[in-house]
Amino acid sequence: MIDGTRLPVAELDERIEAILRGAGLNEVQAGALARVIGAGERDACKSHGLYRIDGVLRTVRAGKVRPDAIPEIEADDSSAIVRVNARGGFANPAFELALPHLAERARRLGLAALVINDCTHFSALWPEVEALTAQGLAGIAMCPSYASVAPAGGTRPLLGTNPLAFGWPRAEGDPYVFDFATSVAARGEIELRRRAGEPLPEGWAIDDAGEPTRDPAAALSGAMLPFGGHKGSAISTMIELLAGIMIGDLTSPEVLEELGSTTLAPMHGELILAFSPEAFARGRPGDPFARAEALFEAILGQGARLPSQRRYAARAVSMAQGVTLSSAEIAHLDRLLAEGMDAVA
Amino acid sequence: MIDGTRLPVAELDERIEAILRGAGLNEVQAGALARVIGAGERDACKSHGLYRIDGVLRTVRAGKVRPDAIPEIEADDSSAIVRVNARGGFANPAFELALPHLAERARRLGLAALVINDCTHFSALWPEVEALTAQGLAGIAMCPSYASVAPAGGTRPLLGTNPLAFGWPRAEGDPYVFDFATSVAARGEIELRRRAGEPLPEGWAIDDAGEPTRDPAAALSGAMLPFGGHKGSAISTMIELLAGIMIGDLTSPEVLEELGSTTLAPMHGELILAFSPEAFARGRPGDPFARAEALFEAILGQGARLPSQRRYAARAVSMAQGVTLSSAEIAHLDRLLAEGMDAVA
Repeated sequence: MIDGTRLPVAELDERIEAILRGAGLNEVQAGALARVIGAGERDACKSHGLYRIDGVLRTVRAGKVRPDAIPEIEADDSSAIVRVNARGGFANPAFELALPHLAERARRLGLAALVINDCTHFSALWPEVEALTAQGLAGIAMCPSYASVAPAGGTRPLLGTNPLAFGWPRAEGDPYVFDFATSVAARGEIELRRRAGEPLPEGWAIDDAGEPTRDPAAALSGAMLPFGGHKGSAISTMIELLAGIMIGDLTSPEVLEELGSTTLAPMHGELILAFSPEAFARGRPGDPFARAEALFEAILGQGARLPSQRRYAARAVSMAQGVTLSSAEIAHLDRLLAEGMDAVA
Repeated sequence: MIDGTRLPVAELDERIEAILRGAGLNEVQAGALARVIGAGERDACKSHGLYRIDGVLRTVRAGKVRPDAIPEIEADDSSAIVRVNARGGFANPAFELALPHLAERARRLGLAALVINDCTHFSALWPEVEALTAQGLAGIAMCPSYASVAPAGGTRPLLGTNPLAFGWPRAEGDPYVFDFATSVAARGEIELRRRAGEPLPEGWAIDDAGEPTRDPAAALSGAMLPFGGHKGSAISTMIELLAGIMIGDLTSPEVLEELGSTTLAPMHGELILAFSPEAFARGRPGDPFARAEALFEAILGQGARLPSQRRYAARAVSMAQGVTLSSAEIAHLDRLLAEGMDAVA
């Protein structure tokens, strides 16, 4: 017997939204956040699911995010850059507001960038690139986080876990989407292991003396390591440059200095590139979408997997049967709804 | 005593150009190729240095590249996409021709893409992104190669070594540039080890039965592995999608099918993104170039290195003292000049 309650996805989203509204978030903030947190839980992506509600409330309580922010599109010119200011709120409602502008610009110019400034960011990036694929566009999304990763060859936190996501639209079925931290592991994975009392795999982190460690707590007070050695470290540095410095927003070390804590959701910017495959392929032989399918088939034909396959499988189950939550999770949701901030450590 | 002859960089470039002209390449092809091959040797980047001349000549001899091609800018519209057709020649003269167009477009729109179609590509990508940084622009370059890398979890070659390069301009000194294969190692590194009779490090490759191998020859007839496991594999797949399929050019498996050999330079396309940091940072606090310097200082302050540092150090020596070549290398250059194609195995 599984200790679990099944909730339809829509009902889960409503519960999350009610909790966030109860904690003082306005409609656009609570709605957009409930959708991404609900989507994380729906896709069995626990590190970006319900677990994140507490962090959101802590960040609101600490006064580090504006729960009543209304995002705003800035200076909508004819360039390839669409800029939206989150006005101190969360990134997600800003993205929802700007998405149609970005899609229009990418279709018209072939390529466009969305800059989100002055936002607090706590969610995965796959919702962003997946939303682009739903518009028939390919997309790349990236952002800093807070200093928690040592550069390859370094000894102290400097880079963020700096996620990189990519999406490619598919006519049938789920899009090709990847989204990963440029650290070996996501901070959430280390945090979950800390809570579960489990050791880390080798190579994930160093302690505060710069020595390798498998202790999650030592890793969280030391530094995580980039994936793929100097190559992952270079990609992470590129993300600081493009999605922090270039867009005039905070880098990961600046975020940490500003927040003074790694338990609050980080504030910074985000950079999203949108590509129109139709515009790029125009006048060239072959249909890009059909050709992409042949590539995916060749990957699957070797017994290799496409990224997000597990997430989509979980999604299919959730959509058909609802999301299964443990009684402890249900109880925590009830407490969050009844007590709001007071239910958060 | 070192068995070596020092050649000034300009003289080395001239010798390479004379060899290529002698082998039938026209002025734009030979000139652009000599510059990138010379730059590789100058930067002690041996796998993209003189060693590449033989491959160029083999590819010409096999009729797989047009030595007399004149690249052409196509349909120069107002979109964010600049397209240049290499017309069956090498990528490098096409890039040189298109660079001013790309730079102008990126300055005007903030962001622009250069698509190079129908080219043969054999050089590193850092010359491209470095050229963008010299224009005050940041850049990302990527291209497929030929099927030689198994996707993570796969057993056979499918992806290319699919290089990814990035550059950020610096007011003083050399730009921040990285350029690496998304395989654990570049094919050239394995080839050099094969020639030297050295075993490969663990984790670089699988043999043709899909089992791990340290034998360079077995690796070359089996498959290389992507860097960073499934993350590197995903990035490599993204490169197939964006810089192969999306731009209407060949993917790595298609290149191999077309060429029928991994000893010839691959033909495909290339995608280069150019960003204007000034346009992106406009209206935001802080100077992006000064802020980037602070980030680089923080990296160096931990004892970590910036990518390309070794290359720049070698370049400084080469510029001051000339490039040191062994007597065998000099003899081979002499043979190439005297005998042309006949000097190539």
